[in-house]
Amino acid sequence: MRRWRRCPWQKEFSSSTEGVRAVRIGMVLEYDGTDFHGWQIQPDRPTVQGVLEGALATILGDHVRLDAAGRTDAGVHARGQVAAFSTGRPVDCTRLQRGLNALCGPGIVAQRVGPVGDDFDPRRDASSRLYEYRIRNAPWPSPFTRRHSWHVHRPLDCFAMKRAAVALVGQHDFSSFQAADCDAENPTRRVFESEWRTVGEDLVFRIAATAFLRHMVRNVVGTLVQVGSKERTVEDFLGLLAARDRTRAGPTAPPHGLCLVKVEYDRLFAASPS
Amino acid sequence: MRRWRRCPWQKEFSSSTEGVRAVRIGMVLEYDGTDFHGWQIQPDRPTVQGVLEGALATILGDHVRLDAAGRTDAGVHARGQVAAFSTGRPVDCTRLQRGLNALCGPGIVAQRVGPVGDDFDPRRDASSRLYEYRIRNAPWPSPFTRRHSWHVHRPLDCFAMKRAAVALVGQHDFSSFQAADCDAENPTRRVFESEWRTVGEDLVFRIAATAFLRHMVRNVVGTLVQVGSKERTVEDFLGLLAARDRTRAGPTAPPHGLCLVKVEYDRLFAASPS
Repeated sequence: MRRWRRCPWQKEFSSSTEGVRAVRIGMVLEYDGTDFHGWQIQPDRPTVQGVLEGALATILGDHVRLDAAGRTDAGVHARGQVAAFSTGRPVDCTRLQRGLNALCGPGIVAQRVGPVGDDFDPRRDASSRLYEYRIRNAPWPSPFTRRHSWHVHRPLDCFAMKRAAVALVGQHDFSSFQAADCDAENPTRRVFESEWRTVGEDLVFRIAATAFLRHMVRNVVGTLVQVGSKERTVEDFLGLLAARDRTRAGPTAPPHGLCLVKVEYDRLFAASPS
Repeated sequence: MRRWRRCPWQKEFSSSTEGVRAVRIGMVLEYDGTDFHGWQIQPDRPTVQGVLEGALATILGDHVRLDAAGRTDAGVHARGQVAAFSTGRPVDCTRLQRGLNALCGPGIVAQRVGPVGDDFDPRRDASSRLYEYRIRNAPWPSPFTRRHSWHVHRPLDCFAMKRAAVALVGQHDFSSFQAADCDAENPTRRVFESEWRTVGEDLVFRIAATAFLRHMVRNVVGTLVQVGSKERTVEDFLGLLAARDRTRAGPTAPPHGLCLVKVEYDRLFAASPS
């Protein structure tokens, strides 16, 4: 049995659903962040949330608020962003997915759309996030990967970068890699995976953690590239992590190499068919 | 010792090189074919050859003609196109490469530029070409691969496609897969490799041959997709190859899934430093 619940924020957007039980819909989204000013809705700027909420309003005839697992920055991509909204209107998920992809594509594609439990919160319920950061390490950029990888033309010592990266696994205070304007109360995060893989001429950094501080992955990558280009030793990197001093990290790597690949949940939130 | 030779076509483009020995320069090119009307120069339309020859004229102050290993169609990409030109002007290859990539990028990138023997013909001297055709076989397209793969949403039987593809290896008359306007005198080609690989949600067809007939790879792929979607049996595909009848093949697959990956030469054409 699916339980229905009115969403607390629904009243502020729509008065037409008074007395109607809300249904909660989840989706897995893929988007090319190049042409968007990040996830979060902003006035007068194209954002992923803004485009999707606009399309949902057209399809449902109802203004809904879309919650996401991660608020990706301007230029950052996603292959597995998870989002959810609640509505009092009846929803046919197959038609909704077709409508969304017709209105939002080709830059944003809803790969999966389906009903979820009415208490599903894509951000708070997430048990881990996996990000990938892609670097093209070759003398010249490639026309095929330029939108989705950072081009570093000086040769990088991948082995030094691997040795430094593995030190991030475990529970650490990541203050050293936090953005200046990060408002997280607790800078401790648990990292499950942190490694570089070589894929053709690209170096791909995979990092999975419970959650991330603002700009954390890009600050880690910027500093690891300093290790790879001999501007910093592996020992210096380890000392920086221990120092918990955000003034000593390397530069923030550009956003277009970063991609939110997967968000994981400990329990399934798909509502059983009632 | 590098031997110098005047190129026969040079006179028609430039009278300033009379009596000057020509140097021949080769290059390996990568380009995203999306925004080009193919390789071959055309009036009033952006083509890869047109953009490159325009940039070379700016850099060298000399009109040169660029010969390529394969004249890719509109929308077809290249990761390893090989081209060459001759000029009577002095050439600094490092500066030439920088200039080309500044003027032609980001859609066209010269990955290598260097002197070659003065008799080097990128088309006639090529001993084999390797093409890849990429299909995204998933219910929805991906924002990341939509420019470089054909989206086929109905599930394809990859094993049937593999069994049919392998039959192309060897020397065959490929009339059945020739474009109607193909002007090749002899439709026999030797295929070295013909196989499907699964790369994530993509199916990638790799085919290497001495040379290809016009639209041959795209006609083969269009017909193999019919095999994969049960519109045609593997035996029917084998019969079609034997029939040498171009009216019975499947539809031509769209150009944007196709990429010229590599061109191989039996001997090295790089000129030894004199």
